[in-house]
Amino acid sequence: MLARRRGTTMLLYDFPESGNCFKVKLLFAHLGLDYERRDVDPFDVVQKRELLGGLNPVRRLPTLVLDDGRPLAESNAILFYFAEGTEYLPADRYERAQVVQWLCFEEFSHQPYLATARLWAMGGDPPSAEERAMRMRGGEMALKAMGRHLERRRFLVGERYSIADIALYAYTQFADESGFELDGHPAVKAWLERVAAQPGHVPLAGLRGDADARVP
Amino acid sequence: MLARRRGTTMLLYDFPESGNCFKVKLLFAHLGLDYERRDVDPFDVVQKRELLGGLNPVRRLPTLVLDDGRPLAESNAILFYFAEGTEYLPADRYERAQVVQWLCFEEFSHQPYLATARLWAMGGDPPSAEERAMRMRGGEMALKAMGRHLERRRFLVGERYSIADIALYAYTQFADESGFELDGHPAVKAWLERVAAQPGHVPLAGLRGDADARVP
Repeated sequence: MLARRRGTTMLLYDFPESGNCFKVKLLFAHLGLDYERRDVDPFDVVQKRELLGGLNPVRRLPTLVLDDGRPLAESNAILFYFAEGTEYLPADRYERAQVVQWLCFEEFSHQPYLATARLWAMGGDPPSAEERAMRMRGGEMALKAMGRHLERRRFLVGERYSIADIALYAYTQFADESGFELDGHPAVKAWLERVAAQPGHVPLAGLRGDADARVP
Repeated sequence: MLARRRGTTMLLYDFPESGNCFKVKLLFAHLGLDYERRDVDPFDVVQKRELLGGLNPVRRLPTLVLDDGRPLAESNAILFYFAEGTEYLPADRYERAQVVQWLCFEEFSHQPYLATARLWAMGGDPPSAEERAMRMRGGEMALKAMGRHLERRRFLVGERYSIADIALYAYTQFADESGFELDGHPAVKAWLERVAAQPGHVPLAGLRGDADARVP
C-alpha cells in the first residue's frame, strides 16, 4: 500500500470481508471518491486500540480519516456524511428522516442478527443453541419487516436507490449463506436484485483489495 | 384522552416507561411541540399489529403520525426529523455526521445492552446467566466508550447539547438501577448531570401522562 499522503487522501481502516466496510466502499465507488485503505484485524484488540484508539471511541471498523485529518466512525454515519447533497440522500426532509429510520433499523433490528449469523457461517466461534435460535429469530423478523415494506415498493425510501438501500444490502446480500431462506421473502430477494443492478454497483469481492480501492 | 383531531395534531404511539419514547417526548418538550399520545403495550403483539401495522414495518414504539398523517418510526429518526434546522442538530455537516455517528452507536452498541438490562431490572423475564453476562459486558464497553469520549468534553458533539445527548441519555440515565456502576464512569456521570441541568429538561416521570403531554 502507498504511504498515506496526509491532508490529501482519505484513509479507510478496513476489513475486506466486513459488510459495514463494504457499505462505505460501495458508496465511494458510486461517488468516484479516491481513498487509501489499511487492513485491520477486527479480532485483534491490541491493533485496534493502537490504530483506532484516538479516532473512534468504539474502535470498530470501518473508521475513516477525512482528507483534512478529522475522523468519522460508524458505517451508516459515514454513508450519511458523503451522501448529503448527492442523489443518494433525498433532499426532502421527510424522506431524509425515513432514510435515517432505515439506518436505525439496520443498526438495531437487522445487523445484530444477520451480521452475527454471517460471522458464524464464516467460521466464527459457534454460539450456544439458545443464542443461535435468538439471532435467527431476530433475523427472520428483520427480513419480514423489510418484505412487508418492499412488497409494494422498488426501494426503501422514495422509490429511489439511496444509502438506506446500501446500508440494508450490506448484510442482506449474505442472508442465504448465513442460514436464512430468502425464498420465503420474495420481495426482499427482488429488491436485492434491483440493488445489484444499479449502475456502478460493485460486489464485495470487487472492493476487497488495494488494486480495487479506487473504482473507476 | 382527547379524540385525535386528524390533520391538526401529531399522534405519538407511546409506552410511558420506554426510554425510546422518552427521547421523543423530551425533544418535543424542548421545542414546545403539541401532540397527542396513545398508550400501547409493547408486549401485546396483537395490539401492536393492529395499531402500528400500517405505520411502521417493525411495529415498535415510539411510532409517530405527523400532523399531515404521514408516519415516522425509530426514535432516533424522529429526533433527527424534528431537530433539523434547530439548535438541537448542528448546522455544520461534519458535526451533523458526528451526531448520526452517536445515534448509530446508541442503536448498535448501547441500547441492546442498557435497555435490556433495564427491562430485567424492571421485572422482565429473567435471562440465562450466559445472556445476562453478555449484555452486562456490552453495556460496560458502551459506558467505557462514552467515558473515553466525554473525559475532555462537555457534550457528545461540538461542545453543545444536541439530539446525540438526548439519545444517549435515555437509557444511560437508568444505568445504575439497571445493574451498572456509574461510579466507575465519572465522566459519564458528570455528563448525565449536565444533560439533566439543561433548560427545559423534563425527567421521564414528568412526561408520562396525558396531563404532561404538552409541556409548557
